[in-house]
Amino acid sequence: MTNQPVVCGTSRIVGCNISLHPMTDNFLNIILGTLEKVDTSRVWMKTDDVSTCIRGKAHHVFATAKAILAYASTHEVHVAFHATFSIGCPGDTAGDAYMEADDSVPNKEQVREVADSIYVGSQFALYPMNEPNYMGLIYDAIGTATKHGTYSQSKHYASRLDGSIEEVFHSLEQTFTETSEKTSHVVMTFHASVHSPSHSGNELEIRGSAHVK
Amino acid sequence: MTNQPVVCGTSRIVGCNISLHPMTDNFLNIILGTLEKVDTSRVWMKTDDVSTCIRGKAHHVFATAKAILAYASTHEVHVAFHATFSIGCPGDTAGDAYMEADDSVPNKEQVREVADSIYVGSQFALYPMNEPNYMGLIYDAIGTATKHGTYSQSKHYASRLDGSIEEVFHSLEQTFTETSEKTSHVVMTFHASVHSPSHSGNELEIRGSAHVK
Ligand SMILES: [Ca+2]
Repeated sequence: MTNQPVVCGTSRIVGCNISLHPMTDNFLNIILGTLEKVDTSRVWMKTDDVSTCIRGKAHHVFATAKAILAYASTHEVHVAFHATFSIGCPGDTAGDAYMEADDSVPNKEQVREVADSIYVGSQFALYPMNEPNYMGLIYDAIGTATKHGTYSQSKHYASRLDGSIEEVFHSLEQTFTETSEKTSHVVMTFHASVHSPSHSGNELEIRGSAHVK
Repeated sequence: MTNQPVVCGTSRIVGCNISLHPMTDNFLNIILGTLEKVDTSRVWMKTDDVSTCIRGKAHHVFATAKAILAYASTHEVHVAFHATFSIGCPGDTAGDAYMEADDSVPNKEQVREVADSIYVGSQFALYPMNEPNYMGLIYDAIGTATKHGTYSQSKHYASRLDGSIEEVFHSLEQTFTETSEKTSHVVMTFHASVHSPSHSGNELEIRGSAHVK
């Protein structure tokens, strides 16, 4: 079913290029304050004018990306967040990655409290590379997100995920992980909007989320 | 060399999901003003809280996306711009697209004057889907951008393009078009930064661009 062998039983390097955009004159302080507050010790990290790249074990990359969005969203300012997750790129180096981290996630409960209480509107797209069954794997991912209750609708070229930051990141991490167990090179893009002027502010209440404040 | 037949001689629908982020308290006025100023008559367009989707002929999609970035960049405010271009997605509908447009590009010279004079720092990534030679096609695209003088370096998971908005969009359009002639389903992501606090303001002069003001 797949063209490339999946490396089983090895911890494969996951990377993510993240762009964070608080739409306020004070954007730079919010970005710097967020990166300061987030514990990035479990990933390798490098920032330039376009994005911040983090690399490490899958669970730490997703936890760190989630913490960045969650903490940036605590300022009641409209924030846009873009992330591209990657695994298994041919020619990827073993360097520029922190793989020795233990499984503990820093500040897990503090981040969870924030991530549970903030609604994010988003879209994601999955790109299983060099994979004849790529459309089947995409439908599997939509099935998983549907079971979670985060998949809300299809749009051109992407699928919407709506829910708390916690719920949406759970769907992102699970669909990415499941897909990377079936095929070797996977890319997933994620585009998100928090405190958008077009959000009502009641989205989590309407969803009946048990975690809404 | 490829798994899927390329539909030759037909004008295929190209789509693009665009997210525009002026990093200022006044972001909403800049976004609305930009979409008002840009002539979007040659594409189908739909906007939600995360992105604006435009669909039509390739040249009109790239021209409209370029105009959106160019006009948004005339406010001397830091702007981030994210775009995902797509062609040939299996199951794409023939609807939600404007394909009858003639080849003329509205406001071409006005947009060009702006696009020639503003530096953009960016990264792009190409995803030829279900394509065993996808890495070869990616290297071909980097070769094209190198000939143009916009390719500056590789980073994890993406390649940097640096230059004027006009130069960078020329590279984006040509690499996307060339790749879509070789394989059927192509996705290209583009993440860009204009007037970044980390830009010196002299980038085009340093490049010795003939178009710098
Ligand atoms: Ca920190």
